[in-house]
Amino acid sequence: MSLPAATVHGDWGSTRLRLFLVRNGTVVDRRSGPGIGALPKPPASVLDAELAPWRVTHAIGRVTLCGMAGSRNGLAEARYADCPCDEAGWAASCTRLESAGTPVMIAPGLACTNRNRAPDVMRGEETQIFGALARAPALAHGRQMLVLPGTHSKWAEIEGGTVRRFHTFFTGELFALLRDRSALTTADPRPEGADEGFSAGLARGGQNLLLGALFEARSAQLRLGRSGGWATGFLSGLLIGRELGEALALHDGDPSPVTIIGASALSCLYAQAFAARDVNVAMLDGDDCALAGLAALDRYLTQETAP
Amino acid sequence: MSLPAATVHGDWGSTRLRLFLVRNGTVVDRRSGPGIGALPKPPASVLDAELAPWRVTHAIGRVTLCGMAGSRNGLAEARYADCPCDEAGWAASCTRLESAGTPVMIAPGLACTNRNRAPDVMRGEETQIFGALARAPALAHGRQMLVLPGTHSKWAEIEGGTVRRFHTFFTGELFALLRDRSALTTADPRPEGADEGFSAGLARGGQNLLLGALFEARSAQLRLGRSGGWATGFLSGLLIGRELGEALALHDGDPSPVTIIGASALSCLYAQAFAARDVNVAMLDGDDCALAGLAALDRYLTQETAP
Repeated sequence: MSLPAATVHGDWGSTRLRLFLVRNGTVVDRRSGPGIGALPKPPASVLDAELAPWRVTHAIGRVTLCGMAGSRNGLAEARYADCPCDEAGWAASCTRLESAGTPVMIAPGLACTNRNRAPDVMRGEETQIFGALARAPALAHGRQMLVLPGTHSKWAEIEGGTVRRFHTFFTGELFALLRDRSALTTADPRPEGADEGFSAGLARGGQNLLLGALFEARSAQLRLGRSGGWATGFLSGLLIGRELGEALALHDGDPSPVTIIGASALSCLYAQAFAARDVNVAMLDGDDCALAGLAALDRYLTQETAP
Repeated sequence: MSLPAATVHGDWGSTRLRLFLVRNGTVVDRRSGPGIGALPKPPASVLDAELAPWRVTHAIGRVTLCGMAGSRNGLAEARYADCPCDEAGWAASCTRLESAGTPVMIAPGLACTNRNRAPDVMRGEETQIFGALARAPALAHGRQMLVLPGTHSKWAEIEGGTVRRFHTFFTGELFALLRDRSALTTADPRPEGADEGFSAGLARGGQNLLLGALFEARSAQLRLGRSGGWATGFLSGLLIGRELGEALALHDGDPSPVTIIGASALSCLYAQAFAARDVNVAMLDGDDCALAGLAALDRYLTQETAP
């Protein structure tokens, strides 16, 4: 008796691996594993071990992965497709490997050179972007701004379904460093007050200060009786507010509709920041978009290999 | 036979203790010890142990300390004198203790409330500021801007010898976090290229980008063959450039002469950043100014206690 056919889609980032077993376009099982940044053994061995239980029950025709799986420390260093780039150009740049006889496709990242700036790169977010275009076809019409908040936030300009260019903001990693590794949030141990702190930070971020506003997280605890929770919220609001300030200044006069793609809690903080600047936004779930992007890539590869 | 009389001056910061034995206005010996942030035992015991060798050879009339000695984790939480504040107002706010029968004076910090901002505080830099005024009396004339680069850079506006207000920039601590705790400088191990990177970062800092420019330190290694040394220099130039951008915008139209007070290597980086904006600066050594400030405080206390 032959095993039922299936494909595996996976988002392998720095901090976690998420694998999805897909049959006839439907996710029928999922597994989680370690991220590329914290692997106990070589990535190929980790992938083999994670796939093993599914090989018992299914004939896996292909594994399609995105994210840091394609980085220097991943399965293989995958290409960057150059912007401007549409779905076909992106999918055509896939890197092809094999795992225990099964073809493994790694999605390319995207690269672009902004005017007067160093080249910029992304790995993983491009899959969410093409997934968003698949899930919300209206995004393929006209000009759109897609904002993907996270460790390294990406602002991508889309036109007619093509990624024209994008810009990285170091917001999430900087927030984690300041929260966990500085003395800015530790003067007062009380956890409450984060929402109030966020609003205060957002207002401060609307001014043209970042280096000159960070220390306020601490001095407000020392001199105004604010809590450590308030200070953490303040840092979050300040950094997100500054990201919007810098990004909107870069796109001065661009009236493109904005769609936020990410986890809901973080997306809502960004939506608050946009609302404070009277900008309306749409929101899409980041995991849904990643899965849709992997499915789009898989469809492309299926057509390509059809007889 | 009685021991020769002496006083001890000390700058006890977060990372190190520097003590100076002073006789007739001259430093005759010096010792170094652990900073307030890394003490092996209670600060009073550490101070006693550090003073012990000098007690054998000198009659110590007074110990005068500045910096984090007066913080919550120091010898005693010293007051903040409120701005505007001149030398007499500062010196009058000293905190008085005793160590094995010897009077110990702790310099107050300074506090101020900037318009539309949280209160700001300093501990240690005020002693360098009053020391600078003692060493360079011309600074007491008219309006002056004193810039004290460091972990938490301070920009102090002086008028007629009085500290009117000041503003803290989180530049030094942020640079150390990004250099040591992020992936921005580690993609390429080569150490060379720091000067070129500093110039590139300074130029980028002249634009209105910080969150949107940090990732360039990494992408330039991945895509342009820059070294890790270049990336570290880039971060330094970018942050110092942004500090100047933010600070000069805060003091828009203020033509006050600028004096940098600090260690010579760091002061020179700031001088380069000012030169890139066509601002001439004077420079004073930070250690010299700290010693001069402690001496000024000691003179004040001597007059005060004179019969």
